Amino acid sequence: MASTAEICEHLLQSPPQSQHAIAYNYLVPNVKGLESLIKVMDATGSTAETPGSATKPPTTTEISLFAAATEAFSKANTNCTIAESLERIRPIVALAKTKNIRVRGYVSVALGCPYEGPDVPPSRVADITATLLEMGADEVSVADTTGMGTAPRTLELLQALKAAGIANTDLALHFHDTYGQALVNTIVGLEHGIRIFDSSVGGLGGCPYSKGATGNVSTEDLIHTLHGLGMHTGINLEEMSKIGSWISSELGRFNESRAGKAILARIQEQ
Amino acid sequence: MASTAEICEHLLQSPPQSQHAIAYNYLVPNVKGLESLIKVMDATGSTAETPGSATKPPTTTEISLFAAATEAFSKANTNCTIAESLERIRPIVALAKTKNIRVRGYVSVALGCPYEGPDVPPSRVADITATLLEMGADEVSVADTTGMGTAPRTLELLQALKAAGIANTDLALHFHDTYGQALVNTIVGLEHGIRIFDSSVGGLGGCPYSKGATGNVSTEDLIHTLHGLGMHTGINLEEMSKIGSWISSELGRFNESRAGKAILARIQEQ
Repeated sequence: MASTAEICEHLLQSPPQSQHAIAYNYLVPNVKGLESLIKVMDATGSTAETPGSATKPPTTTEISLFAAATEAFSKANTNCTIAESLERIRPIVALAKTKNIRVRGYVSVALGCPYEGPDVPPSRVADITATLLEMGADEVSVADTTGMGTAPRTLELLQALKAAGIANTDLALHFHDTYGQALVNTIVGLEHGIRIFDSSVGGLGGCPYSKGATGNVSTEDLIHTLHGLGMHTGINLEEMSKIGSWISSELGRFNESRAGKAILARIQEQ
Repeated sequence: MASTAEICEHLLQSPPQSQHAIAYNYLVPNVKGLESLIKVMDATGSTAETPGSATKPPTTTEISLFAAATEAFSKANTNCTIAESLERIRPIVALAKTKNIRVRGYVSVALGCPYEGPDVPPSRVADITATLLEMGADEVSVADTTGMGTAPRTLELLQALKAAGIANTDLALHFHDTYGQALVNTIVGLEHGIRIFDSSVGGLGGCPYSKGATGNVSTEDLIHTLHGLGMHTGINLEEMSKIGSWISSELGRFNESRAGKAILARIQEQ
């Protein structure tokens, strides 16, 4: 597999053709990682924000920074305490800001931890989220990494975030469908006013530090739900379903998207 | 495979041991089918309602009768029009009532039809449901056979049923998770006051007249959702998850239950 720098260089030099705006998101583990990214950007003459033209859509360069809501998961995932991880993140955010690179923070295991169980204190999640935003993160994705979240606990968490003075517009929700609750919890988030939801096509993903963990909720299931509620996403669900089937097959993975598979079955029947 | 009569005879003569009350449900296609059931009941000395004792739980004999919400599906599934199917059902209900056999009606494709699409008129579903109840059905299960139902259309249907004067206590909801909406729609039903939901362990089932159709929403996912909402079901979810895994393996089917698989992964890790 190519290194992050190689992938990054390739993407920046030969960006895939797209009709739509794209944000390229890089996972940056430390300051050195961001320095490497900036070096590649400088070498390729890329800027973090490229405005669109008649022939090219705008692109954004974005980095992802991870904190966890429990000490046990923080140790396993980032090999340091929550406080230490936040102190590592601080200079990365500061450096990214000088280069106009968008910063996305994550709070993992916000609704359940494989080591500490489902009862993660919502006030702690709110504190970590507020700290990331205060550092300069543009957005924080609050993640139910284990899929242990239920509707009442999702609501309780959203209320704690609100009580901590965090605006819905600064938040994203990131659900894994491990226990089948991702769409139910999405509805709770929508009703609360959240409008950014993470997902992965075909439900790709997983987590090496959370056994039995499945990937994110599938993009196809999420989009089908949103369209069913009368919302507009700008996404062609049939095309997305084809992509989900294709990538699952390429990776030899089971296609986890229910809507994706049902839509493909319907297309094939026609 | 044994005939319905053989299975029925075996169950009535040697009921499986259980600590809990059980309703034995038989699918009865016509009056002749019910007459066969009654013959077996008479031959085995069984009654439709057996009160429990210190050593034996009570048992109930129940029959299932199917109507559909669209003409096209009615033709495919029962080879007659909706009106004809209701007239076939009428004498079956009448005979069942003379034997104190509980009757469960179903209205298939209530939220979407493989032939006529998602827009099934809620008022028509309400009319058919009301007719089944007026005939004497003890309960009607309104079924989203194709899984096309969305939260707003589920709510619209429940409002139409209410407007037709049908009590929530006479209704059950029956969701298929083909598009991943079963649990979202279950929440809509719960909020509306419905308390009976159909499901199948491991998500078994399907429908030969609805291509790409998956089975019912899995019992494990449903129970996990209900427990997450703080509801009591009396069901041991770990044991149910083991059953789902076992039966899926016996039938060589993919275990469709997300919660079931996640719970088993958690148990095996311990």
